[in-house]
Amino acid sequence: MGPGESAGEEVCAFAESTGAALAKAGFVVLSGGRAEGVMEAAMKGAANAGGLTIGILPGSDKKGMSEYVEIPVFTGIGHARNAVNVLSSEMVVAIGLGPGTASEVSMAIKMKKPVILACMDELDVQFFSRLGEVVAASTPEDIVTIIRHKYNQNAHI
Amino acid sequence: MGPGESAGEEVCAFAESTGAALAKAGFVVLSGGRAEGVMEAAMKGAANAGGLTIGILPGSDKKGMSEYVEIPVFTGIGHARNAVNVLSSEMVVAIGLGPGTASEVSMAIKMKKPVILACMDELDVQFFSRLGEVVAASTPEDIVTIIRHKYNQNAHI
Amino acid sequence: MGPGESAGEEVCAFAESTGAALAKAGFVVLSGGRAEGVMEAAMKGAANAGGLTIGILPGSDKKGMSEYVEIPVFTGIGHARNAVNVLSSEMVVAIGLGPGTASEVSMAIKMKKPVILACMDELDVQFFSRLGEVVAASTPEDIVTIIRHKYNQNAHI
Amino acid sequence: MGPGESAGEEVCAFAESTGAALAKAGFVVLSGGRAEGVMEAAMKGAANAGGLTIGILPGSDKKGMSEYVEIPVFTGIGHARNAVNVLSSEMVVAIGLGPGTASEVSMAIKMKKPVILACMDELDVQFFSRLGEVVAASTPEDIVTIIRHKYNQNAHI
Repeated sequence: MGPGESAGEEVCAFAESTGAALAKAGFVVLSGGRAEGVMEAAMKGAANAGGLTIGILPGSDKKGMSEYVEIPVFTGIGHARNAVNVLSSEMVVAIGLGPGTASEVSMAIKMKKPVILACMDELDVQFFSRLGEVVAASTPEDIVTIIRHKYNQNAHI
Repeated sequence: MGPGESAGEEVCAFAESTGAALAKAGFVVLSGGRAEGVMEAAMKGAANAGGLTIGILPGSDKKGMSEYVEIPVFTGIGHARNAVNVLSSEMVVAIGLGPGTASEVSMAIKMKKPVILACMDELDVQFFSRLGEVVAASTPEDIVTIIRHKYNQNAHI
Repeated sequence: MGPGESAGEEVCAFAESTGAALAKAGFVVLSGGRAEGVMEAAMKGAANAGGLTIGILPGSDKKGMSEYVEIPVFTGIGHARNAVNVLSSEMVVAIGLGPGTASEVSMAIKMKKPVILACMDELDVQFFSRLGEVVAASTPEDIVTIIRHKYNQNAHI
Repeated sequence: MGPGESAGEEVCAFAESTGAALAKAGFVVLSGGRAEGVMEAAMKGAANAGGLTIGILPGSDKKGMSEYVEIPVFTGIGHARNAVNVLSSEMVVAIGLGPGTASEVSMAIKMKKPVILACMDELDVQFFSRLGEVVAASTPEDIVTIIRHKYNQNAHI
């Protein structure tokens, strides 16, 4: 999870590396599936590393979809699909922050999903920590290590 | 909007007064409609003051519904109904904070809805301010004044 | 419930009379809320007769909304909102038939909601009868009589 | 698509063979994902034939899920997920008939998706033909032939 069009280059590079690292570690990578920002970067990294990518799209067709989505799910339910993203993930990795990402992270905490935060200010991490349990990571490798520690098997991200 | 079962007494009292103040000012009050916390208190305040109350419920029937909901909408879409709440409101008033409320406030900012925050720590207000435009209010009367200032007509809350 | 843009004049006239008859009988009338066909006609009839009208809209704003909707719910979930319409109704009245209406009637049967059919061919009524319990009505007055027979109190339609 | 717990043995056998035939032909098979009736049978046939299976589930977790679903999407939106099923499929194959299936077939016609019907009475096929374009098939092999004729490439079913 992460911001769309507003995401900066550094955040996108981090997301692409994370997608690649997760795919290499054997995880399925799931995102909002649009051809923008962190979603696009994570899908690209994972797909180029040979991983399976799932995109849970807000719309009804391929318009605006990342070309790196292998399995598209066209929900047609708009912003409400954020809840589907979170429910369908075993862990939620949020890279960077915008209002959409904040909404997903908050929902993940509400749904008791494990949450990993990256590329966020210390104050933002503190905010989410007041809402529930979250873990901050500094590198894509950290993220994989944390996830591996939680699971000994494949998991949707 | 506001936390459910975790809401404290003070926050609920504020929510009830706000529901009453909004109803007296002629506004329709819309909430998640469950018989818990801020939702219940706001509906109760509004209904007892003679206002119209709408509950956008996560479930498929009256189980767990506040008795103060006059017009129930049974979405049956679970947590995804938070998006419906926000879209169907002309302004979003968040009283108190939990992960569900944080999700709704973030989504409201994403959807460019006017947002008023109450009963929140200064750090939480600062968090949302970094995401977009929000206004903090100290009393139910403040909330009505802010809304009146935005609208010269009835609006769903 | 009933077809949108494809609805004929006779069907719309029936829907408008039904909306008016239901409103006069004290029922709240709920529909898909768009400014087209049976939805528009039923809302118009009910609103002009002084009834309360609720529109459960597929979109995120007033674009395409019937002007006779008093309480709009903007779901933003597209076609998936048909399930919300059905769940939020105590009885489903279908006037005329198109694929969208067939979908709603089938869903209502699935959800064990009472269903009244009007302005449909005998073969179509037989189709739905094979799926579950439905009642056919010939006039708006019949519809009110059937509903009154089921309820001694107000009900959402 | 097809009925759940009410599906008869013959219909389930047909669904299992169809799942297998589609998987062997290289298609991804998507269903409602529950461990019942036609959904379960089609997933089983496809998975055992080495195909990729996607389940778009109504609930929030694995409870009631078919063990043959390889990629689960937990929508948490209940019956409204029928719309997601249809939108996410390039073609809709309905085997047997119940109210839920009738709802999905009607929605698929509404959304202009190609629809193939099997294991249905002639009167039911005629009903859907009055709503829009549908094709009836007699055997699993017929279904594959019809789909191949429409596509020269992989497609979600």
